[in-house]
Amino acid sequence: MAKEKMVKAITSMEEDFAKWYTDVVLKAELIDYASVKGCMIIRPYGWAIWENIQKIMDGMFKETGHENVSMPMFIPESLLQKEKDHVEGFAPEVAWVTHGGNDELEERMCVRPTSETLFCDHYKNIIHSWRDLPKLYNQWCSVVRWEKTTRPFLRSREFHWQEGHTIHATAEEAQAETIRMLNIYAEFAEKYLAIPVIKGVKTEKERFAGAVNTYTIEAMMHDGKALQSGTSHFFGDGFAKAFGIQYADKENKLATPFQTSWGVSTRLIGAIIMTHGDDNGLVLPPAIAPIQLIVVPIAAHKEGVTEKAEEVTDRLKNICRAKIDNSDNSPGWKFAEYEMKGVPLRLELGPRDIENNQCVLVRRDNGEKVTVSLDELETKVPEMLEAVRDGLYNKALANRTEKTYVAKTMEEMIDIADNKPGFIKAMWCEDRACEEALKEKAGVSSRCMPFEQEQLAPTCICCGKPAKKMVYWGKAY
Amino acid sequence: MAKEKMVKAITSMEEDFAKWYTDVVLKAELIDYASVKGCMIIRPYGWAIWENIQKIMDGMFKETGHENVSMPMFIPESLLQKEKDHVEGFAPEVAWVTHGGNDELEERMCVRPTSETLFCDHYKNIIHSWRDLPKLYNQWCSVVRWEKTTRPFLRSREFHWQEGHTIHATAEEAQAETIRMLNIYAEFAEKYLAIPVIKGVKTEKERFAGAVNTYTIEAMMHDGKALQSGTSHFFGDGFAKAFGIQYADKENKLATPFQTSWGVSTRLIGAIIMTHGDDNGLVLPPAIAPIQLIVVPIAAHKEGVTEKAEEVTDRLKNICRAKIDNSDNSPGWKFAEYEMKGVPLRLELGPRDIENNQCVLVRRDNGEKVTVSLDELETKVPEMLEAVRDGLYNKALANRTEKTYVAKTMEEMIDIADNKPGFIKAMWCEDRACEEALKEKAGVSSRCMPFEQEQLAPTCICCGKPAKKMVYWGKAY
Repeated sequence: MAKEKMVKAITSMEEDFAKWYTDVVLKAELIDYASVKGCMIIRPYGWAIWENIQKIMDGMFKETGHENVSMPMFIPESLLQKEKDHVEGFAPEVAWVTHGGNDELEERMCVRPTSETLFCDHYKNIIHSWRDLPKLYNQWCSVVRWEKTTRPFLRSREFHWQEGHTIHATAEEAQAETIRMLNIYAEFAEKYLAIPVIKGVKTEKERFAGAVNTYTIEAMMHDGKALQSGTSHFFGDGFAKAFGIQYADKENKLATPFQTSWGVSTRLIGAIIMTHGDDNGLVLPPAIAPIQLIVVPIAAHKEGVTEKAEEVTDRLKNICRAKIDNSDNSPGWKFAEYEMKGVPLRLELGPRDIENNQCVLVRRDNGEKVTVSLDELETKVPEMLEAVRDGLYNKALANRTEKTYVAKTMEEMIDIADNKPGFIKAMWCEDRACEEALKEKAGVSSRCMPFEQEQLAPTCICCGKPAKKMVYWGKAY
Repeated sequence: MAKEKMVKAITSMEEDFAKWYTDVVLKAELIDYASVKGCMIIRPYGWAIWENIQKIMDGMFKETGHENVSMPMFIPESLLQKEKDHVEGFAPEVAWVTHGGNDELEERMCVRPTSETLFCDHYKNIIHSWRDLPKLYNQWCSVVRWEKTTRPFLRSREFHWQEGHTIHATAEEAQAETIRMLNIYAEFAEKYLAIPVIKGVKTEKERFAGAVNTYTIEAMMHDGKALQSGTSHFFGDGFAKAFGIQYADKENKLATPFQTSWGVSTRLIGAIIMTHGDDNGLVLPPAIAPIQLIVVPIAAHKEGVTEKAEEVTDRLKNICRAKIDNSDNSPGWKFAEYEMKGVPLRLELGPRDIENNQCVLVRRDNGEKVTVSLDELETKVPEMLEAVRDGLYNKALANRTEKTYVAKTMEEMIDIADNKPGFIKAMWCEDRACEEALKEKAGVSSRCMPFEQEQLAPTCICCGKPAKKMVYWGKAY
């Protein structure tokens, strides 16, 4: 009955996906709304997910030679304006600080929307010789973009992210770094978040303000819409020239270095929710789940049950993030509660189980129940956690495969875009006018030009001129 | 010669302590100045120290049941104003955001100088019943206070810290939490930073804006000046009442909860520098040193030296944060470089050492050199790291003991304050007028009323009325 109540407490995905999403972020206690519109409070359970993401990813960055730094959160207006494309892209959506205490500032400053300009200013100070290169820097912080419409994790005025900023002696090195970090993002998404992604390059229209090229990983949500989940930018020497960064090369001649930047954000939590979630709530990939296994004692009032359940929990704490719920809530209430919170495995242990030296393990992703000997827990639990990850990945991949279409004519494109939410593969001439026409007529944006190209047709779907690229199109968050 | 050059590159402590400090933070590559006045760039080596501090402390918080959350960085003006004392204390020094993009905001907001008001606003949403209490929350973030004069780590307009915010059913519980966290700060400072601290309570004048009581750990720097190194505040129910936070108690009656907050910041890095540093630069306590041991090959061009040094480094990486410097700089240059960076242990390994299956270990804190068999490294290195920690602690404690004075008359107080930088213990009547007179006449502020009270005299040093408390007085950063 308690379970019934919990389940009914959220809207079903099919009924209203957007409402389902909001229900989940609130009921799973990931966030609370804040008094500043468009900002959010990330509650302990939500923040623990982000901490797990940070920990794994930070390890991957450090293993590849990156170092963390901390830049100020403010950018003076004159500094933001140094790179022309960059300021045009960001100035309309920054928050401006005009006063310190009661005094008006001599120059107003914005809260960083991204930190390229701050890193460039620092690089100019510390880079003098080829010996100072490369610098492989990253920072974990929050940034502010004053968006008109916001949604928790997906688009908020303040959001947490990491921003890598690197600087290299040659264009080749910087280009290699850009791709290396994109690959790390893809590996992280697929291995740890169980989210399949498509790697590719953005069209000029969708490029980061100031970049020569923007690479992306694109994921498909359960409803068929796309979520840009991480980007990596190659800047060439544009920023370095705008900021006057130069170094003496091995021949002692002045040269201009090349830069990159790359970032992922708490959007990834939105991706997890919308990729794996179901009508019972959140479903978390084990690698980032704050609780990987919840122990629920059955008939806990019977002698020895609580003690045995605690003993089992203590054993499991050595191999995973295990927790016991010893509260006086009913088992049914607890089942619903930890389903809502997306805990990957549930372990049920009652008097009969104890007699038989066994327990029941239940997978959150597909409801599969197995009876397992208590002697085998140390091998079975890691196996089942791995199985949950694989199950989630395969289900997400199947969803993407099912909802990926090919369009060869504009009529097909419009028909699919109107009736079948998903990715649409179609050929393109690389003319921005055609990209804009597709947006206008079919309501789709270019997601990316995937690294794995296919030759679907010889001509552009829009203008009929020779096609240059296969593009993934779709509606996006 | 190279060493000579490095050493001469910084001002000596005796000559000009303030200049020495600035030289160290720059030469040890802890920070760079930023384009926004009063803000700083924390460079990789500085940030790695902070990450080590965070990691240990976060573990201590989590072990005691605290959870991390993330609040927005902005506070609407009306929210900041809800608690009268609090707004009076902070409003004069906040940075105000007035515009989002091109639009003026309906209500201006400040960048958080501290987050009590945000936590209260959230607590009001999520606390309804005694079952919801306590909440033991913490966040790691940066805050902004628009200070007039700034110094790296000690006082900057933006600084990084953690702020714990807890809420409890009873005043006793909240009071116990306040003291528990002060004790955790003291333990952290003494055990991991090797900094002896005095625990006590602040006078009313020095209290946090809005607090009933503020507890503090006070450390003495090498120059005899005090550094407030961590504070823990008991709020009573003042904030809860101002924000209308209530809960239904076990008898289902509405009750008002009690709150605390507590914080330490990157000031701790300033404390480390000024407690342990010397004329050769930084001296780091091993627990938070990014590099705990640096391996310097001697006569690296000789056959087998580099290989052996790398083998030794790899072995040591299993037991500490070890690194090898294989660059083509001279050993002397490297010695000076890692002394400047405060690396606790240096391992020298040359051809003769290799022949004898030994190496030389050198302590940064006192220059002590020992020849150690390569077979014993796994036991000797941890022992010596521990000895460095103990050496640093004892040296700091000796400095504090030496520079702690007792004053029984105003003449003594003024004489000591003028001529002997340090802590001055003296009795006080608890009257604010006397506290202000001491500031005016002797230039000292009250550091704290220590938990360990002594009865030095029966009367107040200033007015001659009956004394109520022994106070530590001093000049402070």
